[in-house]
Amino acid sequence: MKTAINLSEKFGKFSEHWSPKIIAQMNDYHFKLVKFQGEFVWHDHKDTDEVFIVLGGEMSIHFRDGDVPVRNGEIFVIPKGVEHKTSAKNECCAMLVETAGTVNTGDAGGEKTSPSDAWI
Amino acid sequence: MKTAINLSEKFGKFSEHWSPKIIAQMNDYHFKLVKFQGEFVWHDHKDTDEVFIVLGGEMSIHFRDGDVPVRNGEIFVIPKGVEHKTSAKNECCAMLVETAGTVNTGDAGGEKTSPSDAWI
Repeated sequence: MKTAINLSEKFGKFSEHWSPKIIAQMNDYHFKLVKFQGEFVWHDHKDTDEVFIVLGGEMSIHFRDGDVPVRNGEIFVIPKGVEHKTSAKNECCAMLVETAGTVNTGDAGGEKTSPSDAWI
Repeated sequence: MKTAINLSEKFGKFSEHWSPKIIAQMNDYHFKLVKFQGEFVWHDHKDTDEVFIVLGGEMSIHFRDGDVPVRNGEIFVIPKGVEHKTSAKNECCAMLVETAGTVNTGDAGGEKTSPSDAWI
C-alpha cells in the first residue's frame, strides 16, 4: 500500500552531518535530507541547479560575492555552475532537491564527500 | 542581492484555491505553492512525476486502487501517467514540484484548470 513519507521520521533515522540521504525520486531527481553543522567546502555543480529547503534551524549559503541566510521555512535555488559553500552555526536540517547522482562536493572532493546513492 | 524565499510569506499573498503559484525554478522544474479545500478532478500527468509536500493541514490523494493521506510534514510522489485526484476536508497548504508547464488538471480540463505560468 502506498504511504506518504514523513520527514521528521526520516530525520530521526540518522545523525551524521554532511551526508545527504535520499527519501524520494521524482523523474531523474532526488529529494534528500541532510543535517549539518560547521562549514562545508567550496564547490559547484556544473550540470544542475540545487534547491535547499530549510526544515529546522538556519544555514548560510556563501557565494564569492556575498552570503545568503536561509531560515526554517525558507527555500533557495543555487544556480548550476555557481561556486558556493554552506555553513551552519548550530545543527541545521534541510531537504535538497537535485538531479540523481549529484555529488555533495561537486568536483572538489575531500573528506566531506558522501555517497550520492544512499537511501534512508 | 540574493535572498531566500519565505514560504509563509508567499502563502500570505494569495487565498484562492486550486490555483498553484510558482515560487522558484530549478532547471526545467517549478516549485509551486497551492491552497485547496474540497475535491479536485481525476487526471494524470503523462510526462512527469508530481511531488506534493504538505506544509499545513492535511490532504488525501485518491488513486483508483485506494487513498493516501498526506499530513503536515509529509511528502508523496505521484508517478507519471497514474490517474489521481486530490482532496482536503479543511484548507490544506502544499508545495508542488513538477516540470515547468505542467497543467494542474492534466488533459482533463474543466473549471478548476489554472494557468501553469503564474508566479507569485
